[in-house]
Amino acid sequence: MPLDLRARQLLVEESLRRQLDAEKDCPSTLAEAMGYSLLAPGKRMRPILVMLSAQACGGEEHQALPAACAIEMVHTYSLIHDDLPAMDDDDLRRGLPTCHKKFGEATAILAGDALLTLAFQVLASSYPPATACGCSLELARGAGACGMVAGQALDLAWEAGATSALPRNLESLERIHAQKTGALFRACLRMGTWVAQGERPGGPDRGTLEAVDSFGRCLGMIFQITDDLLDVEGTEEQTGKRVGKDAVRGKLTYPGLLGVAESRQRARDFHERARAALAPLQGRGDGLIAIVERLLERSS
Amino acid sequence: MPLDLRARQLLVEESLRRQLDAEKDCPSTLAEAMGYSLLAPGKRMRPILVMLSAQACGGEEHQALPAACAIEMVHTYSLIHDDLPAMDDDDLRRGLPTCHKKFGEATAILAGDALLTLAFQVLASSYPPATACGCSLELARGAGACGMVAGQALDLAWEAGATSALPRNLESLERIHAQKTGALFRACLRMGTWVAQGERPGGPDRGTLEAVDSFGRCLGMIFQITDDLLDVEGTEEQTGKRVGKDAVRGKLTYPGLLGVAESRQRARDFHERARAALAPLQGRGDGLIAIVERLLERSS
Repeated sequence: MPLDLRARQLLVEESLRRQLDAEKDCPSTLAEAMGYSLLAPGKRMRPILVMLSAQACGGEEHQALPAACAIEMVHTYSLIHDDLPAMDDDDLRRGLPTCHKKFGEATAILAGDALLTLAFQVLASSYPPATACGCSLELARGAGACGMVAGQALDLAWEAGATSALPRNLESLERIHAQKTGALFRACLRMGTWVAQGERPGGPDRGTLEAVDSFGRCLGMIFQITDDLLDVEGTEEQTGKRVGKDAVRGKLTYPGLLGVAESRQRARDFHERARAALAPLQGRGDGLIAIVERLLERSS
Repeated sequence: MPLDLRARQLLVEESLRRQLDAEKDCPSTLAEAMGYSLLAPGKRMRPILVMLSAQACGGEEHQALPAACAIEMVHTYSLIHDDLPAMDDDDLRRGLPTCHKKFGEATAILAGDALLTLAFQVLASSYPPATACGCSLELARGAGACGMVAGQALDLAWEAGATSALPRNLESLERIHAQKTGALFRACLRMGTWVAQGERPGGPDRGTLEAVDSFGRCLGMIFQITDDLLDVEGTEEQTGKRVGKDAVRGKLTYPGLLGVAESRQRARDFHERARAALAPLQGRGDGLIAIVERLLERSS
């Protein structure tokens, strides 16, 4: 299936710009910092997942744009905060100086806070109540103390050598990633389901939610494996961020634990499982499968 | 009217503890940092405002507990982030070491992020959709890029001497405070209205929202004036935080601009206006008025 990612990226970016422009009483430096990070070149993978999931669940992609923007705001806030000196201390992101390098730490912290908050505002102001509420709950669970933030906390503890509870094996690696990136992917896919089916009596179909959850677990694994492989095999020019840093930091990675060849095989296995997961959607999930195939060939 | 603040504080704290305990997959250090700041001794003024506003608008106080918890989570996240070295760089808060002093900066940033996210999760999971959605929108607007975060950004820019746009006068001071603290007070009061009236066809009564908005503006002013006065006249023991720091930092304050006596008079004028604002609620607003009276006598 041909998958026009570029057209969708442009739709998402136009929509993000409109959402930011609507915040008229926002102080100029704060608005600038928020826009700098939110509109920096990106793959817009998470928002596109929301759109494709809405389509897979019987809705229209354009209905998913507000939810797509919300997830990109949350993703961007997490990048801004993760890049801070107290966290990963990165100076390059999406090919540009990180937010705190450009605007200072205080403004970067506030820009992240404001983007996270704006995500929930966009949901509450863009959808009928049941859909808004369903999306908001999925987003909060995926992003919060048991989701993305938990993953980041475990990852930091790991790097600091403090997680004696987590042995240095595949199971620990998968637990960290299930929270750090998997939980937000799950939220993307479930928000798509809510956008498509949120106003049905009783809410979204349970079988559909299970199908997208199962697909999401595979997607998360493939994403993380290919991300780890890129840090070993990619260049800074391709990825827009520093490479080789995982090894330097002694970070737990798939190629580090399994080697490059077995990591690749594992990603291919998850591809098969992802296809099987979406079989109940009878072809409407082809866009999501195409995303997985792009990931397997990714170079950035 | 006798106002049993202590009983309400205990209700709020019990409810906060329950909300935190429900986050079972949260890594232990993160959970500890969130609980440390959220459950540190506090006046719980904002959550009590939500409860009293719900009552003033014809609802029951206990219905307001989830919204009350949400606002306290947002307030606490803002304290954690504001205390960071890159922001106000404070080491004492609510009489205890600040979150980053106790758990390190990275964990403090994440604990703040997780509390902000949890606030929206609690709203979405505790109310019927229309009420949840209304509360979520009020909270996001009050806390976000045009509300509390905007106020913090303006305040920082001011201290850094960067706001050539804002002259050093009362108007600028009131603009900063309207965003920094006023916007969240407004959200408290409006969330109370939504809790009481959110499921009515067409949502809350417009006149009631205007009454609580108008009361909220007065409350915000009184809060800020008395807060500024405490920094001049209070002790560290009373307030649980450093005092006298406003003057050291050359911060714009009411006593600094108007002197102590005129600041006090101004607070009393706002008290009269606050009473007038709630007159349409026919006595149901007495709890809110009592809060204002406590503020005028505050010593912490």
